[in-house]
Amino acid sequence: MLRWLTAGESHGPELIAVLEGLPAGVPVLMDDIQGDLARRKLGYGRGSRMKFEQDELHISGGVIHGRSIGSPIAIRVGNTEWPKWQEVMNSQPVEISDASRGRSAALTRPRPGHADLVGMQKYGFDSARPILERASARETAARVALGAVAKSFLAELGIEIVSHTLSIGPVRVPEGRPYPTLADVDTLDADPLRCFDPETSAKMVEEVEAAKKDGDTLGGIVEVLAYNLPPGLGSHVQWDRKLDAQLAAALMGIQAIKGVEIGDGFLTTTRRGSEAHDALYQTDRGIQRETDRAGGTEGGMSTGTVLRVRAGMKPIATVPRALPTVDVATGEAANAHHQRSDVCAVPAAGVVAEAMVALVLANSVLEKFGGDSIDETSRNLQNYLDSIPDL
Amino acid sequence: MLRWLTAGESHGPELIAVLEGLPAGVPVLMDDIQGDLARRKLGYGRGSRMKFEQDELHISGGVIHGRSIGSPIAIRVGNTEWPKWQEVMNSQPVEISDASRGRSAALTRPRPGHADLVGMQKYGFDSARPILERASARETAARVALGAVAKSFLAELGIEIVSHTLSIGPVRVPEGRPYPTLADVDTLDADPLRCFDPETSAKMVEEVEAAKKDGDTLGGIVEVLAYNLPPGLGSHVQWDRKLDAQLAAALMGIQAIKGVEIGDGFLTTTRRGSEAHDALYQTDRGIQRETDRAGGTEGGMSTGTVLRVRAGMKPIATVPRALPTVDVATGEAANAHHQRSDVCAVPAAGVVAEAMVALVLANSVLEKFGGDSIDETSRNLQNYLDSIPDL
Amino acid sequence: MLRWLTAGESHGPELIAVLEGLPAGVPVLMDDIQGDLARRKLGYGRGSRMKFEQDELHISGGVIHGRSIGSPIAIRVGNTEWPKWQEVMNSQPVEISDASRGRSAALTRPRPGHADLVGMQKYGFDSARPILERASARETAARVALGAVAKSFLAELGIEIVSHTLSIGPVRVPEGRPYPTLADVDTLDADPLRCFDPETSAKMVEEVEAAKKDGDTLGGIVEVLAYNLPPGLGSHVQWDRKLDAQLAAALMGIQAIKGVEIGDGFLTTTRRGSEAHDALYQTDRGIQRETDRAGGTEGGMSTGTVLRVRAGMKPIATVPRALPTVDVATGEAANAHHQRSDVCAVPAAGVVAEAMVALVLANSVLEKFGGDSIDETSRNLQNYLDSIPDL
Amino acid sequence: MLRWLTAGESHGPELIAVLEGLPAGVPVLMDDIQGDLARRKLGYGRGSRMKFEQDELHISGGVIHGRSIGSPIAIRVGNTEWPKWQEVMNSQPVEISDASRGRSAALTRPRPGHADLVGMQKYGFDSARPILERASARETAARVALGAVAKSFLAELGIEIVSHTLSIGPVRVPEGRPYPTLADVDTLDADPLRCFDPETSAKMVEEVEAAKKDGDTLGGIVEVLAYNLPPGLGSHVQWDRKLDAQLAAALMGIQAIKGVEIGDGFLTTTRRGSEAHDALYQTDRGIQRETDRAGGTEGGMSTGTVLRVRAGMKPIATVPRALPTVDVATGEAANAHHQRSDVCAVPAAGVVAEAMVALVLANSVLEKFGGDSIDETSRNLQNYLDSIPDL
Repeated sequence: MLRWLTAGESHGPELIAVLEGLPAGVPVLMDDIQGDLARRKLGYGRGSRMKFEQDELHISGGVIHGRSIGSPIAIRVGNTEWPKWQEVMNSQPVEISDASRGRSAALTRPRPGHADLVGMQKYGFDSARPILERASARETAARVALGAVAKSFLAELGIEIVSHTLSIGPVRVPEGRPYPTLADVDTLDADPLRCFDPETSAKMVEEVEAAKKDGDTLGGIVEVLAYNLPPGLGSHVQWDRKLDAQLAAALMGIQAIKGVEIGDGFLTTTRRGSEAHDALYQTDRGIQRETDRAGGTEGGMSTGTVLRVRAGMKPIATVPRALPTVDVATGEAANAHHQRSDVCAVPAAGVVAEAMVALVLANSVLEKFGGDSIDETSRNLQNYLDSIPDL
Repeated sequence: MLRWLTAGESHGPELIAVLEGLPAGVPVLMDDIQGDLARRKLGYGRGSRMKFEQDELHISGGVIHGRSIGSPIAIRVGNTEWPKWQEVMNSQPVEISDASRGRSAALTRPRPGHADLVGMQKYGFDSARPILERASARETAARVALGAVAKSFLAELGIEIVSHTLSIGPVRVPEGRPYPTLADVDTLDADPLRCFDPETSAKMVEEVEAAKKDGDTLGGIVEVLAYNLPPGLGSHVQWDRKLDAQLAAALMGIQAIKGVEIGDGFLTTTRRGSEAHDALYQTDRGIQRETDRAGGTEGGMSTGTVLRVRAGMKPIATVPRALPTVDVATGEAANAHHQRSDVCAVPAAGVVAEAMVALVLANSVLEKFGGDSIDETSRNLQNYLDSIPDL
Repeated sequence: MLRWLTAGESHGPELIAVLEGLPAGVPVLMDDIQGDLARRKLGYGRGSRMKFEQDELHISGGVIHGRSIGSPIAIRVGNTEWPKWQEVMNSQPVEISDASRGRSAALTRPRPGHADLVGMQKYGFDSARPILERASARETAARVALGAVAKSFLAELGIEIVSHTLSIGPVRVPEGRPYPTLADVDTLDADPLRCFDPETSAKMVEEVEAAKKDGDTLGGIVEVLAYNLPPGLGSHVQWDRKLDAQLAAALMGIQAIKGVEIGDGFLTTTRRGSEAHDALYQTDRGIQRETDRAGGTEGGMSTGTVLRVRAGMKPIATVPRALPTVDVATGEAANAHHQRSDVCAVPAAGVVAEAMVALVLANSVLEKFGGDSIDETSRNLQNYLDSIPDL
Repeated sequence: MLRWLTAGESHGPELIAVLEGLPAGVPVLMDDIQGDLARRKLGYGRGSRMKFEQDELHISGGVIHGRSIGSPIAIRVGNTEWPKWQEVMNSQPVEISDASRGRSAALTRPRPGHADLVGMQKYGFDSARPILERASARETAARVALGAVAKSFLAELGIEIVSHTLSIGPVRVPEGRPYPTLADVDTLDADPLRCFDPETSAKMVEEVEAAKKDGDTLGGIVEVLAYNLPPGLGSHVQWDRKLDAQLAAALMGIQAIKGVEIGDGFLTTTRRGSEAHDALYQTDRGIQRETDRAGGTEGGMSTGTVLRVRAGMKPIATVPRALPTVDVATGEAANAHHQRSDVCAVPAAGVVAEAMVALVLANSVLEKFGGDSIDETSRNLQNYLDSIPDL
């Protein structure tokens, strides 16, 4: 069983990510993790193209000479802006100098669509600072770092994860377009919206430009695909062991995600049964499905067909033309705090969604196949595949 | 923390449901549980209107004289058809008599859209019987029984759960219609599709009739609403503590669910930020939101606004005009086994979804407020509400 | 991962036990479970030799024709005395007839050494009834039933579990006596105290007789041995994955257990390092240890040497010559309720301890080797053993 | 619910500790954590009195200006010897310079009593390095850091944790000596063995001297006391919710611990029932117990009497006069690797045991009382205490 926790605040000294339960022998390379941290910053419509060097990466444990050793993997992602936040966010009581006075003021105008107000109520604060610091999307960097490790584990078993953007606001890739594979990732990452359909991508760029001009923000939908999964990950025997339930939690647990679909999802609810499932045919590669409406799961288990899941992201809640709120210090109507200026974070959400899917799948693989070294897990997986009757 | 497990097969002697962690003093009445078990059988388009007496209800532990005692609640739901299945499904090796011969034959034509094929591969069976027995929707009766208990706990705290049908196949309640409240449940349950909009309900009936005539099946979307939640259930601090992540898993963990939304869900992804969130206003009842686009969560926490979540169900996979499959005993093309003839199970899915939502919320309440008796939990909740500043 | 929960009260209609996560294909036979339930009633010094037929056994789910199917295993153990308790313990509000009046009176004199007083405080009751019903040792019947299933799973992998009594009160088997193996279980079960040393057993009988004469009770120590474990169950990498930590929780979680040891346990603390560990030697069966002071674990992992763990049970707290207490209804000094008359439950505790050890080991096996069928788990285990270098 | 994980290797760059679930508003001060990290190094018979500055402490998240904010607490404990290990233990593939050649050699002579051999078998290594790095007792520094935080949380609720040394090898504090309280901690920490009985302490010093002269090592027993617990932490209703089961796992999960006792533990097994329990008396402070044989738990719940638990530590397994082993590279008999020269680590184990007990109790408090701020938890606890009838 994998367990993973992240810690750290948006303007704190660093994020921490810990992953417990990974077998030994898995390649864990800084380049891979840095690569995904850089990919997480992709996307047309980000306020300022953040440079990678802001993510100062350290591996604190669990890895020797590029391979996991079975111990918990611990990763640190430093914050290069820490010097200017070190008074405001210091873990210990410190004097606040004049330079930090402004940054240190109580945030009393909670932003609609954020954790601000309810977090203050729950945790008993009169400033949103301690809430928004943790609720911020920056926390997803820690997940992406762990996701890169999980993807490396899966890659050793031949399992490949790809994500792409399906829609930005109302602009959506038409049904029926081909799915990208691992070979397409560089192309995808080079696209301003990580959209695999160039024509749609161009319209998305226009949409982002229009929203930007209007001081507004956009959401959208990302899709994650997993290739070469064995059949039988997850289980039908208990609700919380269903692979789709676990994927739904992992995706809905990403900041700003409001909807999750497996395969054709809500579209399937409008179809008749005769057109909604994936019929089975005997082929020279064993029994196969010719369609993938189900998204690669039946009965809460991976079928071996490509896994296909989607996450719908709401528009960024920090809207440049600020939303109405209340100043909790005074009870007066106010405009919400506005702290950054991205128009659209959907392309980044795809990379975060990859990470979450990879972590869930890695866990499911370990649940089914066990193993304390990549050789052992791999051997168990292969022997299982060999044991499935060919007919 | 609540833990719950169910056990039992569709044609086994009984289902078992265990709920660990409920405080003492919660009313647990057979009538309430039976009521929800009966509601689970509602719905136009069920093959034969199953009578309630088929669910033989027993409470095996955790309740004395109508109140929980803090011990695990255990509930049994007997199967009145057991006598005719007792050879085929006997837990012990038994002689199969002639009468059971047919029912006892290996099921070798796995049904597309079901757990059949992948379950056989995962667990190493050459018949689908041991898989479909557990993957069957009958298992949800055990969840509904526990959900009735969870709803009783929530009701003691003033929290109310309501579900209704939003769509059947392509027929959908128009946006902007009022939400049903607890006072509307009898009306809802009397509607053939549990739809709150009479005009839409009539169209849904037509849709079901048409599908039935065509030997086909339908899916749809249900919505669950929770009223009077305190703000602050769930948490933004870790991905798996987000209330929406937990709700997504619970709903996606229901048989046949392929999509989950919080609030306006995927619709929100098409809106601009300025129109997608719920602005805050000072009122004489404290700070309030005038809209509920978010569905009652921000930052993974309940806001105190009505919680609103949706689950999209695929059409029943056992389609009367049977889907193509392969006979795994011979490798020949075949038609899938066909065992029952419901056209549409969406109204029932609403009742199951209520149960799952209730269980998640009950767990979240206990996580935040603790308590080993309903008095203690209730007191802690009230004191928390009193501690939130009014401004 | 295995999960298991029990439910049910001592005088309720039945106990329920659910075991989630067992692979398919494991033999689950009524005879085995009944055998262990009967063994749980063994022991000189039990008030009245309870007959087995009082345990009415049902398997509610997870098993077809003597083999597990991968679904949760659910077992019911009925209470033959239910008819006379059905008013007092009815789950629903009922009229209390004259016949039940006495049995139904509030229990207001909490027994020292039992959960009574603190349970009433925690759960808010003014009678000990709802507490003692669940805290009672009868609940261990449910664990023993599940333990029988876990032992069957382990047996398929060649792993054998044996328990015996090390001490009764001050009478203890001398150090250095041989350990019993599976072949000795019938002999052990025939011994009045389940003691493997006949001379010590005779003294134990005298000790029990003496205590009985004095209206007193006795405790003692049991030891559980597990043979043929593979090396590497559990893990050193995180505190809660250590096999000995998990065993300690499982044993200390048995009613009345106050101490747990791995191997020589506290005796080891008095030895010097040069005499406290198990040196390693090359043999024709690979590297072996000639001693087993450690009890078969190093670094929180099974070494492959025999696993040996002990649990120390306090004397039965319901002492015939009743202990001083306070009547909580009046505040007056009183004698504790006295409800049964066993002198010593240590032999039974051995059987319960077997069950708990078996459940922990079964879980550890699945964590390391995975598998959804006994064939798959077995194959993975064998391939792992084959992969360990012989030197 | 609290969750905690540690990561990091003995000679890696740093240890990482993450604690999830702590309420907001708890004082988290570097001085407190550093104080406990320094206390962990106490003890006569440590090879070289390690200086504190070797523990370079950082708080990475979850704390602002000395108070927790509800987010996960993350702590880093740096390794000042990292520069000389940075090639050998580098997370990435690096060139090994001549200076690191020796330190970098494969460790092929597994040490008896350590995780070395079985860890190599489990994880598939041919050197013990990747195993002993994580199995090392240095990992406990991470737990001690978290324990300091948990103790601060408990202290806010008036709960106090104290540990002391009960025995070193065969030298043991006589029964019946008074227990230390929080006021005695400075005295205890000043004692060379953290023993509260000066006469016994002197004998312990002699014992350590004698072992040292003989090139040998010693174990012993520590006891942890918790004062001012409310009644009702833990629960009797399920085996794994029993407080003593959780404490047993936490203590047995410490490196080198082989036995755990609650209260008088194994001594109780030798007593008769009439002398083994704690009778109840009415006093002007409510119902009280005059003895504490049970160690403050009944039925798996804290009684409100002082909690008293013990952990027995085996002698240090790295014995100066090295134990026999096998060189796994050659199959030849060999002496075990010997890397450090402590005689006795028992005083340090007391500090680690405090940490583990504090973490378990903090979790139990949150389970019963909930709360997302220290004010909320504290209020819920106080109201519960007020609700217990006085008689």
